[in-house]
Amino acid sequence: MSSADAVRFEVTATDGASRRGVLHTPRGNIRTPAFMPVGTAATVKAMLPTSVAETGADILLGNTYHLMLRPGAERIARLGGLHKFMDWSRPILTDSGGFQVMSLAKLRKITEEGVAFRSHIDGHEEFLSPERSMEIQRLLGSDIQMVFDECPALPATEAVLRQSVARSMRWARRSKIAFGEQPGRACFGIVQGGTIAELRQESAEALKSIGFDGYAIGGLAVGEPQAEMFEALEATTPHLPADRPRYLMGVGKPDDLAGAVLRGVDMFDCVLPTRSGRNGQAYTRAGTVNLRNAKHAEDPAPLDPECACPACRRYSRAYLHHVVKSGEIIASMLLTWHNLTYFQDVMAELRAAIAEGRVRKVAKTIAGVYARDA
Amino acid sequence: MSSADAVRFEVTATDGASRRGVLHTPRGNIRTPAFMPVGTAATVKAMLPTSVAETGADILLGNTYHLMLRPGAERIARLGGLHKFMDWSRPILTDSGGFQVMSLAKLRKITEEGVAFRSHIDGHEEFLSPERSMEIQRLLGSDIQMVFDECPALPATEAVLRQSVARSMRWARRSKIAFGEQPGRACFGIVQGGTIAELRQESAEALKSIGFDGYAIGGLAVGEPQAEMFEALEATTPHLPADRPRYLMGVGKPDDLAGAVLRGVDMFDCVLPTRSGRNGQAYTRAGTVNLRNAKHAEDPAPLDPECACPACRRYSRAYLHHVVKSGEIIASMLLTWHNLTYFQDVMAELRAAIAEGRVRKVAKTIAGVYARDA
Repeated sequence: MSSADAVRFEVTATDGASRRGVLHTPRGNIRTPAFMPVGTAATVKAMLPTSVAETGADILLGNTYHLMLRPGAERIARLGGLHKFMDWSRPILTDSGGFQVMSLAKLRKITEEGVAFRSHIDGHEEFLSPERSMEIQRLLGSDIQMVFDECPALPATEAVLRQSVARSMRWARRSKIAFGEQPGRACFGIVQGGTIAELRQESAEALKSIGFDGYAIGGLAVGEPQAEMFEALEATTPHLPADRPRYLMGVGKPDDLAGAVLRGVDMFDCVLPTRSGRNGQAYTRAGTVNLRNAKHAEDPAPLDPECACPACRRYSRAYLHHVVKSGEIIASMLLTWHNLTYFQDVMAELRAAIAEGRVRKVAKTIAGVYARDA
Repeated sequence: MSSADAVRFEVTATDGASRRGVLHTPRGNIRTPAFMPVGTAATVKAMLPTSVAETGADILLGNTYHLMLRPGAERIARLGGLHKFMDWSRPILTDSGGFQVMSLAKLRKITEEGVAFRSHIDGHEEFLSPERSMEIQRLLGSDIQMVFDECPALPATEAVLRQSVARSMRWARRSKIAFGEQPGRACFGIVQGGTIAELRQESAEALKSIGFDGYAIGGLAVGEPQAEMFEALEATTPHLPADRPRYLMGVGKPDDLAGAVLRGVDMFDCVLPTRSGRNGQAYTRAGTVNLRNAKHAEDPAPLDPECACPACRRYSRAYLHHVVKSGEIIASMLLTWHNLTYFQDVMAELRAAIAEGRVRKVAKTIAGVYARDA
């Protein structure tokens, strides 16, 4: 296999625990720290893929759970894979479905083999296991495939968490075996363990002994205070290999991203910029802005004067308020575009700051802006 | 006033009763026959204005009724006018609100002075008259302003229609006076009279005696058979000045457009391409296509292989089916883009055909395709 066909992580600068780097893949390079917009059902909601690329996104996330239910993994494979289907030629990371099957599906039955459940769309019976999840991700043509793990309902006792982590590690091994050899594609393990430092460490060690192309941190951003999440990161990232990317799943607000970068995280995904955009909520250099608020009704100023997205360059807050209030689709289009642009700008700023040895200062500024909204 | 500041209609070719031309305005030229996408509430639903321009649209339609209720004409004026507000620099035609106030508003009371009504959004009391409608259109900065007329509920007796037309003609005169002198902007009259040829002719003569920059044909496309609409056009267009543009309001399907062009109409507007796009319905060179239909679920073919829009160039019917079924916003975005592109392509084809003396043949082809769907 030539190096052009391999997935390879290169750390180009460090600043404390923060790392700047590049994850090289045959479909393109991912500049880290990276934010991955969520393209659940083969679309980043309210965006054309060309527009998503314009925001600076190097990689998207796709959801195995949603895609297996509709339109189906085998169908996407017959149509040439997820990239072609959704018109996105850059890398795609797929989750395993483990989290969604716990949060969305009905009538779940969990055994050592996997999870039987009913679709939240039409109630038909489905089954996910490490082997089936990896098969689906392979059928989709995913560039970065996540192991299938168990996500325990929280709060949980330490005993329950410990059993859950143990099962997740057994499933991680089965997932890695099912992944097999896929040149140019990567398989990531997922550290679990809630906010129990010892469990996190054990989970990290178990995954390292299996050996993955990258290591995700799961089971966080499920409602715990930010300080607890940061503690869990501090208990985890030091136990992960320095030469592999680290991905904090489902996070988060701009200050969460900055704080996690300070703790050595390289990759993120979150529905926040897209979902908030559809709800009239914008993230800006001055904090969150609720465009529904009547105070914007006659404001000729742009949403964020430093932002280069179409919402900020071409429209007033008054216009954005009007289309949000009127329930117009263009409101979702413009605010999603803006939020994704801002999130990518935050990542670009963090990457530049790491290279220049001032990441703490930049993270503090971001935290200062968003602490106001907390 | 220099000619660059004037609205001027130039007929560049004729083919039977069909005319090809250019309506020159300070904000840009409108190639006729022209189709105007509807931008009701300061947005062509599910489209960015840059994308609307890419489809080939030279002019948009804005709705006085919707804009007066939300965000309000005075507010838009304070924000610099409708063009700036909605980021559309090309011409805008505004209707008078007369049709919408009859179809959407609640608790209408019609007097010789005007129409008192309650907003369909929040129930607050409003009033529209010829003077107020023209004031609103002026505040919006509309390039082509329509007279305020009465739209009688159909079916109506000839006596009722006759009274209604008489009032509309009185209101047309008041509208023209209220329009006053607005260099670079145009005021269009509206011929009424239902499907009664004699009334249509009287209405046309009355408007000509007032004198307008263009003449619209209203009160059609309200459910009557196509043949009746065409008859009404044949009873009207010969009585309109040859050197002024003719605008058939609220029409229509591609075969309606072609048939009306054969009868000397120059301009059209209709919600069909945008509304259908949001409902999963596409207009193509092979007729209408319902993307909701399961037969498209695994079809790798493009929606319309001859179309240059993003939906057709970048996606399969299978993808469009998937996003329509999933209720994804991108379905509305892509199908609206496609439908508007197709409607503009139809107009471009008709314009070319007029110049080449083969408009009957082209119109027949279009009618042949759409007769299948009738």
